[in-house]
Amino acid sequence: MARKVVIVGGGAAGLGAAGGAKAADPANKVVVYTQFEDVAYSPCGIPYVHGKEIPDFQALFLADKQSYVDAGIDVRYETTVRSIDTAAKKIRVEGEGEVSYDSLVVATGFDYKDPGVAGAGLGGLYYVKNIRAAMEWDKVLDTVKKAVIVEASALGLEMVTALAHRGIETHLIDPHPWALGELCDPDIAAPVQESWAEMGVTMHWNTELKGFLDNGKGHVRGVATSNGEIACDLVVVATHKVPNNALAMAAGVTAGSTGGVVIDDHMRTSARDVWAAGDVCEIPHGLGGLPLQGLTGSHAYAQGKVAGFNAGGGDRAYQSVYVPWGMVAGKWMIGGVALGEVAAGALGIPHVVGRATGISRARYYPGVKQVRVKLLAEPGTLRLIGAQMVGGEGIKERADFLGVAVRKGLTLHDLATMENVYSPPIGALNEPIAVAAQNGVAEARKGA
Amino acid sequence: MARKVVIVGGGAAGLGAAGGAKAADPANKVVVYTQFEDVAYSPCGIPYVHGKEIPDFQALFLADKQSYVDAGIDVRYETTVRSIDTAAKKIRVEGEGEVSYDSLVVATGFDYKDPGVAGAGLGGLYYVKNIRAAMEWDKVLDTVKKAVIVEASALGLEMVTALAHRGIETHLIDPHPWALGELCDPDIAAPVQESWAEMGVTMHWNTELKGFLDNGKGHVRGVATSNGEIACDLVVVATHKVPNNALAMAAGVTAGSTGGVVIDDHMRTSARDVWAAGDVCEIPHGLGGLPLQGLTGSHAYAQGKVAGFNAGGGDRAYQSVYVPWGMVAGKWMIGGVALGEVAAGALGIPHVVGRATGISRARYYPGVKQVRVKLLAEPGTLRLIGAQMVGGEGIKERADFLGVAVRKGLTLHDLATMENVYSPPIGALNEPIAVAAQNGVAEARKGA
Repeated sequence: MARKVVIVGGGAAGLGAAGGAKAADPANKVVVYTQFEDVAYSPCGIPYVHGKEIPDFQALFLADKQSYVDAGIDVRYETTVRSIDTAAKKIRVEGEGEVSYDSLVVATGFDYKDPGVAGAGLGGLYYVKNIRAAMEWDKVLDTVKKAVIVEASALGLEMVTALAHRGIETHLIDPHPWALGELCDPDIAAPVQESWAEMGVTMHWNTELKGFLDNGKGHVRGVATSNGEIACDLVVVATHKVPNNALAMAAGVTAGSTGGVVIDDHMRTSARDVWAAGDVCEIPHGLGGLPLQGLTGSHAYAQGKVAGFNAGGGDRAYQSVYVPWGMVAGKWMIGGVALGEVAAGALGIPHVVGRATGISRARYYPGVKQVRVKLLAEPGTLRLIGAQMVGGEGIKERADFLGVAVRKGLTLHDLATMENVYSPPIGALNEPIAVAAQNGVAEARKGA
Repeated sequence: MARKVVIVGGGAAGLGAAGGAKAADPANKVVVYTQFEDVAYSPCGIPYVHGKEIPDFQALFLADKQSYVDAGIDVRYETTVRSIDTAAKKIRVEGEGEVSYDSLVVATGFDYKDPGVAGAGLGGLYYVKNIRAAMEWDKVLDTVKKAVIVEASALGLEMVTALAHRGIETHLIDPHPWALGELCDPDIAAPVQESWAEMGVTMHWNTELKGFLDNGKGHVRGVATSNGEIACDLVVVATHKVPNNALAMAAGVTAGSTGGVVIDDHMRTSARDVWAAGDVCEIPHGLGGLPLQGLTGSHAYAQGKVAGFNAGGGDRAYQSVYVPWGMVAGKWMIGGVALGEVAAGALGIPHVVGRATGISRARYYPGVKQVRVKLLAEPGTLRLIGAQMVGGEGIKERADFLGVAVRKGLTLHDLATMENVYSPPIGALNEPIAVAAQNGVAEARKGA
């Protein structure tokens, strides 16, 4: 029986849900409400246009509005959903009034964590999110001489790299002692930071933001920090993502310790016929079930597809996540999956470590890059519980692989004896993952 | 108790064995006999020097001779081992006489299959193998206008690409209807062949070699084929590899159906205290145990390490192989693991196929390349039994991953729900492996 599936949010999760609802039953009526002028563009591409690696914002659009019309998906642009009534199965939309649904998907995404200091309303504070705003900010960047990035989050790393690449004097402040301090280990962050220094970036570690400073005309003139003031023309506020959960919370939908909406393995919330997907949710980590929030666009899209499919009458489960990650930062690629040494240490999880530094192609082949791999395993079983890498190529593919390896319970023994492609232009005699695993097995023997 | 480990052969398997024997016990006396002037260079790099992608042959040397002396490995260069007496545990070396061993590793490598036609003794026939000879041939290539490559084997593909890149008029003859006909599926070979055509290569498929033609002065002037004559200055004979098994066979060591020396999971041959490794061996395929022969330098090295470790008093098993492979051919990378559609069809192995064409980075990010993935799975269980790919980057890393996936019995369901890194410069929203698996699951549902 066809249903009316209403989706709140037009990002990766919302549009994934729209596609999922149509996949479950093409007769479903699917309506998406978004506060923005556009859907179906890649917000993840914005830092690279700012960095002038991508020539213009038009490149980021994935599909035109007509393609959604053609797919039978009714997108309502520049709309605001005011409330959800889960008992009556209705939402209230500004200007449109009450709208009923059979199934609702909440995909309201994230906000940047409020920095919680004075001056947050000043001009010159850039919260990267919406493409139309980014186009305006890009013009501003042409006039900026000196910028401060607040926090070495994933977006912060991308923006530091982009602004330095653009030739802006770039400062980074972060309360941790190194980049991506909660996710990434210091040995993995170190080459990135060295390369930023080469690019002229000034890093201020162990440094708390104390306030944004007013130039007297309502525009930022610098930031106050625990280590003094830094003058600047622009601040990029790249604090951590927090769930944009207000609408769901007001409707009585249960949220968890992270503030993310709690969902089951079918992306169902605590409310009848209400699903949720993407950055508004929290998702249990596959290792130990710790709730995670603020994952990637790829996760949001995949969760959206599952939520929409189920909201549209289908039956599909979403797996626990192990979160392979990867990015370009400075002159390097970094990435990993699940636990690093810092996280495992902080959680008190015992682990054996295997490390290796290898190369991406034959030593003599042009374009060869270093690849450093660190593998963490459970003592005894040597079951893989995490990995971190830094290198010049092949980091994303290795992170994907190791993500599946963690999920499927593969061990260092499995990886130590893996076969690998050896062909001078694309792969070295020894695969660094295999060597790191061999070294981990040897470490474990020593410890035993 | 320290042993005297004698190794016949100074290639990847032989030197892997030397290192393995020292790893098992540093007190072991390790002697390597090689017929060549050098060890520890990368023969796999030779085509890329010919193709002028690597500036000179010196780059291919891995270590100098002193480094083996320093490691306590006694390499006897330009020596010929005439025979093995497994009962007396002695070998006979030309000029050196009888040499006793406690353990022997046979690592005599491969020969190119005799093309079995007239004219095989002419000048101008190039069998790519030894680096000193390659240096001489490289000078000859400066004078060559037109070359014929005999057989679209892995080396043949590399040499076609290299000579075309060097600007030589290049012809390829092969009895199969497409490149790598026994390993690679036609849909994977097609883009490679298109790119060769763009590079000016003339391909002669379904074409048997009938003879090498003499110019009257003992030098080749062309080849006779089942489809007529092709004039040329040079022929690269890139027929399939066959085990160089004469020494082992004469000593009564058992060889299998491929001509390769039969070994157990410890690389032990049928003869007491004799191990073997590399291209002289045959290795059971992990799927069904079919004997394989002529694998890669990476396999040879890994087998050598195991054989040498055991020959030196250690105890280590070598796993069955699933043979991830990958290479650059024309303007593409191709690769895969275990069975393709052609091989599965020829062996009568039922299979479900999932296909996807994806991209290696965000669609709008500079350097983005197409990646096509095909996955084969056992009907019912959907257990992965093979993969083939063609694309512009990340093929080696994906082949390594899928090699482990086949070995560990992962299914299309596992791959369909894999997480993947999404970051515009290094990975797309959708990983082609995941999409191919999703499509394979859908195919299987239709068929069921």
